[in-house]
Amino acid sequence: MSQWNRVAIIGVGLIGGSLGLDLLRRRLARHVVGIGRRVANLEIAQARGLVTSTSMSIPAGVAECDLVIVCTPVGDVAGRLLEAAASTPAGCLLTDAGSTKGTIVAELDARLPSAVRFVGSHPLAGSEKAGPQAAVADLFVGRTVVITPTSRTRPADEAAVRELWQSLDARVVSMTPDEHDRVVAATSHLPHLAAAALAAATPAEGAELIARGWLDTTRIAGGDVELWTQIFAANRTHVLTALEQYGKVLDSFRQAIIAGDDAKLRDLLNEAKRARDALGS
Amino acid sequence: MSQWNRVAIIGVGLIGGSLGLDLLRRRLARHVVGIGRRVANLEIAQARGLVTSTSMSIPAGVAECDLVIVCTPVGDVAGRLLEAAASTPAGCLLTDAGSTKGTIVAELDARLPSAVRFVGSHPLAGSEKAGPQAAVADLFVGRTVVITPTSRTRPADEAAVRELWQSLDARVVSMTPDEHDRVVAATSHLPHLAAAALAAATPAEGAELIARGWLDTTRIAGGDVELWTQIFAANRTHVLTALEQYGKVLDSFRQAIIAGDDAKLRDLLNEAKRARDALGS
Repeated sequence: MSQWNRVAIIGVGLIGGSLGLDLLRRRLARHVVGIGRRVANLEIAQARGLVTSTSMSIPAGVAECDLVIVCTPVGDVAGRLLEAAASTPAGCLLTDAGSTKGTIVAELDARLPSAVRFVGSHPLAGSEKAGPQAAVADLFVGRTVVITPTSRTRPADEAAVRELWQSLDARVVSMTPDEHDRVVAATSHLPHLAAAALAAATPAEGAELIARGWLDTTRIAGGDVELWTQIFAANRTHVLTALEQYGKVLDSFRQAIIAGDDAKLRDLLNEAKRARDALGS
Repeated sequence: MSQWNRVAIIGVGLIGGSLGLDLLRRRLARHVVGIGRRVANLEIAQARGLVTSTSMSIPAGVAECDLVIVCTPVGDVAGRLLEAAASTPAGCLLTDAGSTKGTIVAELDARLPSAVRFVGSHPLAGSEKAGPQAAVADLFVGRTVVITPTSRTRPADEAAVRELWQSLDARVVSMTPDEHDRVVAATSHLPHLAAAALAAATPAEGAELIARGWLDTTRIAGGDVELWTQIFAANRTHVLTALEQYGKVLDSFRQAIIAGDDAKLRDLLNEAKRARDALGS
């Protein structure tokens, strides 16, 4: 009683590979075709049971599919979706897992035939790990997935994409592409910049005195460089706004330290602690 | 065959409490006196077996001790050590667990009688958790402890403090107080500022889109506010230098994003990833 007969996953890395694994393990899909450009990755994906077959051709791989999910780095998502949409059977549902949505969704809204069923997605399940070897079962359980319908989206298609992620036990939130990009600039893209700059600013002689705080704070700086280069390029305006806001807060700390104003410093640290304690554990 | 007959721990929080617990569990100390100003904390410490007795008086608590360790926030360390030194028996070894060393060691070098055996320590075992309820066994196993002898330090005293931490299976590194403060400004104090500023800069509507990257990167911002206020006050110069360096790296990222210079952005991210991958997992 699979929901999907044949699913194509374009890009079998951490996200795509985990998706394939879950769709198969949960018997939500009969066949999962892994599509990619690197033979080595496709072989790992097949060997690990993340997909049931592989293809290096999008037109060949997506033929006869009722669901296509593009899980490449964001710079490639729109192109792959357009290529896939040209070869999918009528009624095939398309979505993606790109970390930014504005440029992708705008390009597809402009270029996809109106009959094509596409709704953008972003599962917030990234990690500093990458590739099909990093794929794990149940990656999306309890995670937030943003879906980004537009005025062009048919309600039935939005519902279908929502149900796809819900069938993997994710929590689905609906936002406009721009709203999504603005918020993740602050909650995901800025943290990556902050962590990367921190790692890069650490002097070599610091190696001996690295402790847990540094390791936690810089962890995501170990993430895939190409992926993140494309994210910053795709979400430039919102990332710069978030960075500007970050610079202002850092400067408040700096001024309080320069002035020896411990009361002000305590206020700033208390505000930060409240924000941290309110949002996570 | 305990190494210590009677140890006083001034400040029974995460660090002091864990120290007491280890000294007792490993049978390195016969008696551990927990000294503090809050009855509630002393009661928790005693109930949890972190200490064998408690006192709210430093002079009374340290009498007859052969080892005193001050584990209060840094702003109080020098004062507590001076008060303790006035009441300890001859030959008693004194150390501390303060996160900064320059101002503390300078004050003690200037004010302690030369017969007093004092060597500064900093166990890199902090956490965003605080208080005696956060104390755990084996907190120092495999952790780095910096000890900061000066020209005033007798080699036998340095060796004794080194052995104390080694007996808890820590890795001991010797540095000057200023060298310590300069390096931890980059590896510990700057990460705290970066994390705190990130938490404070996150807009309220970001709550829904918080994912693992944000949680890791901001984790230490949940740390004890008073403790950190005192650390920044005590290490102002080095922290400002580290913050300036951080600002420069952040600005390089900003310029690359503004210019749409993906090659430069890729270089910066690669440099950060190399630094992160080289220093931790």
